[in-house]
Amino acid sequence: MFIVGELINGMYKNIGSAIAKKDKSVIQDVAKAQAKAGASALDVNCGPLSKDPVSDMGWLVETIQEAVSIPLSIDSTKPKVIEEGLKLAKEKAIINSTSADQEKLDIYIPLAKQYKASLIGLTMNKSGVPQDKDRRLELAAFIAAACQDAKFPLEDLYLDPVVLPVNVAQAQGGHVLEAMKEFEMLANPAPKTIVGLSNVSQGAKQRSLINRTFLVMAIGAGLKAAILDPLDKDLMSALITAELVLNKQIYCDSFLDAYRKK
Amino acid sequence: MFIVGELINGMYKNIGSAIAKKDKSVIQDVAKAQAKAGASALDVNCGPLSKDPVSDMGWLVETIQEAVSIPLSIDSTKPKVIEEGLKLAKEKAIINSTSADQEKLDIYIPLAKQYKASLIGLTMNKSGVPQDKDRRLELAAFIAAACQDAKFPLEDLYLDPVVLPVNVAQAQGGHVLEAMKEFEMLANPAPKTIVGLSNVSQGAKQRSLINRTFLVMAIGAGLKAAILDPLDKDLMSALITAELVLNKQIYCDSFLDAYRKK
Repeated sequence: MFIVGELINGMYKNIGSAIAKKDKSVIQDVAKAQAKAGASALDVNCGPLSKDPVSDMGWLVETIQEAVSIPLSIDSTKPKVIEEGLKLAKEKAIINSTSADQEKLDIYIPLAKQYKASLIGLTMNKSGVPQDKDRRLELAAFIAAACQDAKFPLEDLYLDPVVLPVNVAQAQGGHVLEAMKEFEMLANPAPKTIVGLSNVSQGAKQRSLINRTFLVMAIGAGLKAAILDPLDKDLMSALITAELVLNKQIYCDSFLDAYRKK
Repeated sequence: MFIVGELINGMYKNIGSAIAKKDKSVIQDVAKAQAKAGASALDVNCGPLSKDPVSDMGWLVETIQEAVSIPLSIDSTKPKVIEEGLKLAKEKAIINSTSADQEKLDIYIPLAKQYKASLIGLTMNKSGVPQDKDRRLELAAFIAAACQDAKFPLEDLYLDPVVLPVNVAQAQGGHVLEAMKEFEMLANPAPKTIVGLSNVSQGAKQRSLINRTFLVMAIGAGLKAAILDPLDKDLMSALITAELVLNKQIYCDSFLDAYRKK
């Protein structure tokens, strides 16, 4: 499982304020803690309040890389902000994200190629988020075809079926899980799938329980990567155990500790 | 989800000793607690040490039914013990279980028909437990065909893919989950699936975590019933949340309590 730590995001108070004050230690502590907890990469998002997101992204990327050597997921809706992150990233970066709109794909696929980055493709477009699995599959196919046309390697594409909050769009959970299984049939080898996990519990009570339950089901449905909070210990235990049950971690009595020590 | 409470089994010390002493209150307390915790039915097994299992089964069934009105899963390897339970059961009973051996099917299908009981069919036979999903599917088809030949209604059949302990047969978890999805295609409407959940963690550490992780994945794969410990609160919370995510429980902030109060 490819785990992208979600905690370096300016929408969180501690991070937003650290960005504003250019307080490196807060950022670096969160970066190190996520890496230690098992993150394979770290998402980096300046948040909605950043006044100069290009400069803030640059500062964040450099600050994180002073503390840990880890791939970064450069997270912004602005191509210039993304490019700033890609320029400075030392490890293979991830663009988070493009939608299935042609004009976005025309920007982000070339950027991903130029910087040899991976690309997250959201199966949504200007018309919004699909309400069923078939439309998600159509948009996934559209993104995959655009990548193929541009000779962008499909193994660097992560398809995101767009998880919606269970408290407002409850019927979507099943569609997302079904869509994920079908994405695997789009190409050989199968394109990888990713979800922004915490969306599923946005605004709900019992967030951690809902997150880990959905994650376990999604892993069962073939999920390969997730953007999540690696400091949520119950969530990580569920993830490790899901991999164990699917024979992706070798059983030993101390399998949780063994995973965490790796 | 059809939940069969597993705790009335003579292999547990408190139950074995209550059976030996004919101590009704122990049995009735465990029956009531499981029903209160959400069990849809209760498994009843005299355990390996019973000297007169026909008489013990009769006593157990009557004792339980004095305390709660609930379907019983009559659990034994001996047809006479099963029949004793079926005779006395007041609600629609479940025969737990037949294997995919013709001579067993020849006994249990007629018994199930005679007593209008449901029947659990294990996808294993004298040769043992299959080591892959395809063989499980073959045996499931064999059981389903035997039911159809005997005009036993398939909606009263529960197919059990036979879960094995993750610490000794780790590769089997994935096969069981795949098999379960394929069982659904054997007939229309799909035959129901059931698992003896706690087998998955037999002899392992972290039993509750492994149980609930496997259960959530299995629910995602279409599981309709499980024999489990309904007093394991974390397990039940995972089950409730899995149903929530699949839109089988309506979301409200207090969805766990709402389910438990039903």
